[in-house]
Amino acid sequence: MSAAALAKAVDDVVPIGAALFDELAERTRDTIGITRASYGEGEQIAFDLLAKTGRDVGFDVSRDHAANLIIKRRGTEPNGLGVLSGSHLDSVPSGGNFDGAAGVVAALLSLAAFDRAGLKTKHDVSAVGFRGEESAWFSIHHIGSRAALGLLPPEEIETARRFDSQRTLAEHMGETGCDLDLLRCRHASMPAKRVKAYVELHIEQGPVLVHRKVPIGIVTGIRGNARIRKARCIGEYAHSGAVPRDMRRDAVMAMAEFVHAADEEWARLEAQNRDLVLTFGKLHTDTALHGHNKVPGTVDFVVDARSHQRDTLDDIETFLKRKAAEIESRRGVQIQMSPVSRTPPAIMDESIRSLMRRNAGDLNLHVMDIASGGGHDAGDFANAGVPSGMVFVRNPNGSHNPDEAMTLEDFTQGLKLLASTLARLAS
Amino acid sequence: MSAAALAKAVDDVVPIGAALFDELAERTRDTIGITRASYGEGEQIAFDLLAKTGRDVGFDVSRDHAANLIIKRRGTEPNGLGVLSGSHLDSVPSGGNFDGAAGVVAALLSLAAFDRAGLKTKHDVSAVGFRGEESAWFSIHHIGSRAALGLLPPEEIETARRFDSQRTLAEHMGETGCDLDLLRCRHASMPAKRVKAYVELHIEQGPVLVHRKVPIGIVTGIRGNARIRKARCIGEYAHSGAVPRDMRRDAVMAMAEFVHAADEEWARLEAQNRDLVLTFGKLHTDTALHGHNKVPGTVDFVVDARSHQRDTLDDIETFLKRKAAEIESRRGVQIQMSPVSRTPPAIMDESIRSLMRRNAGDLNLHVMDIASGGGHDAGDFANAGVPSGMVFVRNPNGSHNPDEAMTLEDFTQGLKLLASTLARLAS
Repeated sequence: MSAAALAKAVDDVVPIGAALFDELAERTRDTIGITRASYGEGEQIAFDLLAKTGRDVGFDVSRDHAANLIIKRRGTEPNGLGVLSGSHLDSVPSGGNFDGAAGVVAALLSLAAFDRAGLKTKHDVSAVGFRGEESAWFSIHHIGSRAALGLLPPEEIETARRFDSQRTLAEHMGETGCDLDLLRCRHASMPAKRVKAYVELHIEQGPVLVHRKVPIGIVTGIRGNARIRKARCIGEYAHSGAVPRDMRRDAVMAMAEFVHAADEEWARLEAQNRDLVLTFGKLHTDTALHGHNKVPGTVDFVVDARSHQRDTLDDIETFLKRKAAEIESRRGVQIQMSPVSRTPPAIMDESIRSLMRRNAGDLNLHVMDIASGGGHDAGDFANAGVPSGMVFVRNPNGSHNPDEAMTLEDFTQGLKLLASTLARLAS
Repeated sequence: MSAAALAKAVDDVVPIGAALFDELAERTRDTIGITRASYGEGEQIAFDLLAKTGRDVGFDVSRDHAANLIIKRRGTEPNGLGVLSGSHLDSVPSGGNFDGAAGVVAALLSLAAFDRAGLKTKHDVSAVGFRGEESAWFSIHHIGSRAALGLLPPEEIETARRFDSQRTLAEHMGETGCDLDLLRCRHASMPAKRVKAYVELHIEQGPVLVHRKVPIGIVTGIRGNARIRKARCIGEYAHSGAVPRDMRRDAVMAMAEFVHAADEEWARLEAQNRDLVLTFGKLHTDTALHGHNKVPGTVDFVVDARSHQRDTLDDIETFLKRKAAEIESRRGVQIQMSPVSRTPPAIMDESIRSLMRRNAGDLNLHVMDIASGGGHDAGDFANAGVPSGMVFVRNPNGSHNPDEAMTLEDFTQGLKLLASTLARLAS
């Protein structure tokens, strides 16, 4: 089948997607934005709407033990679960309409376009809608996809509580029709070995595509992070007028040198084309002890370093520790840091990325490589060993807020790239 | 009269001082430290004790319209008010025994030593005990010395309230026997033109003499300051994972560069033997908006620069404004700063400092030049045009706390320097 024929079929099914987005927004809108609670009401509305549409188009619709939605289009010689595409059904509280939903709608429309184009695939292709991806609700993330992969620790089901209801994840999952027994024995509905590939379309969560004037991004990897959740520079309080420079142990001056040195190291690494974002935040002197006339004795802060390159995270962690030790001995301060907590990066499959680049060329799409700063269900599939890919769609106003946006034109371009990629992977 | 003869007389009168310090401590001790409230009980106890001792030794004892204590030893050819020496009678709440009192006791002991040595001076020499020097009580400082110089704005008497009683300065002054009518018309009991010189002994408020192992400091000047009471670096909040370096306007990174650049400028100025202390304090991101996953959008701080050199204050102020503008344009942030509030430095008289250095040589005293970080009554006299000097006595534990300390040996050395200097100035 030609790229042009499938692209034509995509154009034909886009109105189904537009209607789905409208209905989703209408039915899950609150006074500020869109709310689809994880294992809650809005997420269930999205589930039911997409399931009904999937059934109406004629696909097999089912749910797994974690209440994830699976809409399957059969292949001619199925083997295992075939190719999966999707995203999540929930949103942050008062968020936007497209974060998550765009990827599930795009997957369903891809299947619809295959039908319309008369495409036969060898493998099954399924559109999946995951539950509980956003950590805003239960403080843990990617609940549905981790459960599908058999990677959700059973204790999290009992200990995580939804911030609004204060009830446990187990209670909310039970009400949503999940099979708690299977969850407790770590059953996998989508074991990595049985999945041929996973491809996810998602709105970009940052400003890069808008800034670069490119509608579509091919994701290189999902940044992991190295986090220091509690850092404190400890010097000595002293009279700001009476104590000379060489007798001070000024916590703020030491912190400023540390932060600025890290900023310069970041610039140096970036000049070598290393992927890194580095943030120092939640920074404050002690309000009970600081004052206009005092050399500050302590300053607290947190550090968040992210990269899709594991060695870059190693390097910045090493730099921070070395620089802290150097400043400690030179300035007579202590820079205490909690153990660095690491989340591994998730690398998108190189052959899927090549395929996407070729397809984009065939379709005359304007694309660029881009790293993902936020986590996605695709990261769990990639790190479980499933060849995975992601398509980002331009979003002018950032994500996790009601102003999040996406044009139907940009979505259609992303959908064409997704559908052509799924067609090839399933062939 | 030989330096040795006056020094011998000083040794003889030191026990009077030791007894005064003991009685002062005993009668103004609270559960934590020493408390002599400005225009309040403890200050009055100190006033009465010193006045009685002055009368017992045979001097003229009086009080002025601001209830300052004046103990006068007549000269042979008096002209104007002659030479004044003293310090303040109040303390901070729960402070130490010597901050202020040491200078009044030292002045009184100098007069007593003159008597004992049979020294005749041409000019009158008076020991003065000022009221209300510490800003801890009324949030305004040097009340007694400014009133004596006719420099206390009458509105401050009505608006300043003591933090504990919440009553006005006028009420407390009235109760202490001040002449409110004279205060309201800015009467001067010690007009600058009628004072030949003012010399003050005071414990050092910082760690310099202890650190340098020198008992006595000859004060070069009292640092003035350039203060920015409210500074805010404003960038833009953003997702800490998704927004790349070149699209960030990170308030903390900009602040760190600013603070560290100022620190390096300070080091550069100090290498040129410029006097400066520089402090950034009360520093914090916005607790309502900051977060682990956010590029910080604002950070607040205050700046306190002090120097006894007016041009150094000018230079650091210029540097801060220039560097802020440079960082603003390069990083796309705003660094808002409230108008710089300036307190002028007070230069100690060069001829009095030379005299002190010569006397220290004659007496084999180990002295060093030192700048004062805190304010003192001497600063008001100096800035009003009275040739002024200060002697610092080593204090191991800083001031404004109950652990403040001074050995009688160090005090005696300082007293010898003070007495010999007053003798010469009044001759």
